[in-house]
Amino acid sequence: MSQPGSATAAPPDAPLTIALDTCGADGGPDVIAAGAKAVAAEGLHVRAFGLQPELERLVGIERVELRRAEDAISNEEEPVRAVHGKTGASVVLAAQDVADGHSHALVSAGSTGAALAASLFAMKRLRGVHRPAIAVQLPLPERPAEHVLFLDAGANTEVRPQHLVQFAYLGSAFSEAVLGVERPRVALLSVGEEPRKGTPAVVAAHEALAGADGVHFIGNVEGRHLVEGAADVVVTDGFTGNVALKTMEGTSKAVGGAVRGAARSGFFSAIGGLLMRRSLKRLRRKLDPDTTGGAILLGLRGVTVIAHGSSGPEGIANAIRLAERGVRERTVERTAELLERSGASRAAVRASLERDRKPA
Amino acid sequence: MSQPGSATAAPPDAPLTIALDTCGADGGPDVIAAGAKAVAAEGLHVRAFGLQPELERLVGIERVELRRAEDAISNEEEPVRAVHGKTGASVVLAAQDVADGHSHALVSAGSTGAALAASLFAMKRLRGVHRPAIAVQLPLPERPAEHVLFLDAGANTEVRPQHLVQFAYLGSAFSEAVLGVERPRVALLSVGEEPRKGTPAVVAAHEALAGADGVHFIGNVEGRHLVEGAADVVVTDGFTGNVALKTMEGTSKAVGGAVRGAARSGFFSAIGGLLMRRSLKRLRRKLDPDTTGGAILLGLRGVTVIAHGSSGPEGIANAIRLAERGVRERTVERTAELLERSGASRAAVRASLERDRKPA
Repeated sequence: MSQPGSATAAPPDAPLTIALDTCGADGGPDVIAAGAKAVAAEGLHVRAFGLQPELERLVGIERVELRRAEDAISNEEEPVRAVHGKTGASVVLAAQDVADGHSHALVSAGSTGAALAASLFAMKRLRGVHRPAIAVQLPLPERPAEHVLFLDAGANTEVRPQHLVQFAYLGSAFSEAVLGVERPRVALLSVGEEPRKGTPAVVAAHEALAGADGVHFIGNVEGRHLVEGAADVVVTDGFTGNVALKTMEGTSKAVGGAVRGAARSGFFSAIGGLLMRRSLKRLRRKLDPDTTGGAILLGLRGVTVIAHGSSGPEGIANAIRLAERGVRERTVERTAELLERSGASRAAVRASLERDRKPA
Repeated sequence: MSQPGSATAAPPDAPLTIALDTCGADGGPDVIAAGAKAVAAEGLHVRAFGLQPELERLVGIERVELRRAEDAISNEEEPVRAVHGKTGASVVLAAQDVADGHSHALVSAGSTGAALAASLFAMKRLRGVHRPAIAVQLPLPERPAEHVLFLDAGANTEVRPQHLVQFAYLGSAFSEAVLGVERPRVALLSVGEEPRKGTPAVVAAHEALAGADGVHFIGNVEGRHLVEGAADVVVTDGFTGNVALKTMEGTSKAVGGAVRGAARSGFFSAIGGLLMRRSLKRLRRKLDPDTTGGAILLGLRGVTVIAHGSSGPEGIANAIRLAERGVRERTVERTAELLERSGASRAAVRASLERDRKPA
């Protein structure tokens, strides 16, 4: 395959085709079908990969092509082994469809690990990228219409400093290209704002990023700043990122539940809750993972979006729309360009990391 | 000093004395003074260590002794260096007061790192404890009056598997002794519930704890389960713990702010917000860090509680009450006993960890 990402290039107005892995959604085949129907009605082409139960819900929908898979990969399976072993699985076929140039992007609502492994094997990494990362858009409860791009949300449980540095470049490129943020502010997640705070990997990445070109590094942020919008892109390892993301979701849900509980805790509160119902519903929608469409894989020669496992039809549709935007905005090409342009800077980063490796 | 923790032993009904570091609270000396006054009125003795501005607020309060310090350690200083260099700092003198047997426990509202370093140097670790940990009680938004004990909240940014195993013992002992939880359920924080999910350190600790006696290990929990009360004690490294804790606080605050915003977003919502005011206030109080009193250092031969930096008077008073309970319930002695009793188990843990260290 040519570099960079020729498989996903498309003329600005040509109709795009999305390879949709229809297996493994928590909500079942009906949710996937409703989401696919919604985007097909908007003019997108969908190539749907799935088993009989998933595909039969999609029969007869205009602009939806059915591609029968022989297998599906569940959340319980070890992703790399499953992707290697089940060559006829829906997500494997869908990823290959993108690599072969039949589709422009992959969208899956199944196992994140399987979508990552299948994309990595079929589409390959961008030149110079060591580790692809999973990026998610975090909602900011107090600022409507703004998000923080947060990575890595779980692809790499352990990282070296240079991986964190690359995540900064990958996130910055996506934020600018697809999310339209001008000169995105990039921060490292740590346990304090001071440059020496954090694990040795975070401290080394901080030093490297502080001297790096092509990325607007503003320093460390703490967990409490994540939802405050202190940065446009926040970078961490996949273990911490996954824990922080799920902690945020859990807290948001629990506080929301407690507010609903408070609205039932007495006569006046109950009336108050009824009167506030509409604005609380708007807030809940804003914090709903469905709204942002899902996780994006960065660092590959292709666009892959993984819908939130518990997505409803709107979540699936939004995941497909996000993938479409990724292709239209030439994310892969622009990320590759940023990585190229920052070549000199990356040499400096390498030197700084080498220096760090030597005992003080 | 004799083992275990003789400095903190006290007859059940004797009046207790708390060494209070009065420097470094975000709210300033008045907040500390109000908190000290409240507990002194309840019969506790307080030995207050501070500079002139802190101490002059406490002049003439019954059962409050003033101890003039020559120095204070700020949040910006590197804790270990500061504690070594400033031998006349309030927190250093207060920790030494406990070690010398003049006070039964240390409470500080200043730098967490300084309180940890000062306590470690003055009180020493319990026999067999490699690394003390910082434990906090997380509020469960949907379950009034219940908490999760969460550690390490920031003492150790990097850990080995045996440290995580010890945190499980330390947390279990404190949960049972001070918080009154019978046979506390202990879990490891990870990125999935399966035993093989997580960093190599988490996977090794999981295996060791699964075969350990003296601790009721229930497996891994994810970030989303933290606020659901899926376990009584949740164990992680200090980097992840600090990030998760602050993410939770930030999310809780942001969602609360958004709910208040929703209550101002229109005529009906505004009336609804007024009617719900009382129950929302109760909820806010429940989620307020002041309510639980602060972070507890575990693994030392003495009791140290660090009040939340932004504590109000009630937060300071609750931190002192928590320290009092720690002494009365013989936390140090009971933790030491549990570590002793689990000696055989720990040998098995060591063997299992040794086995893990060899290449597969």
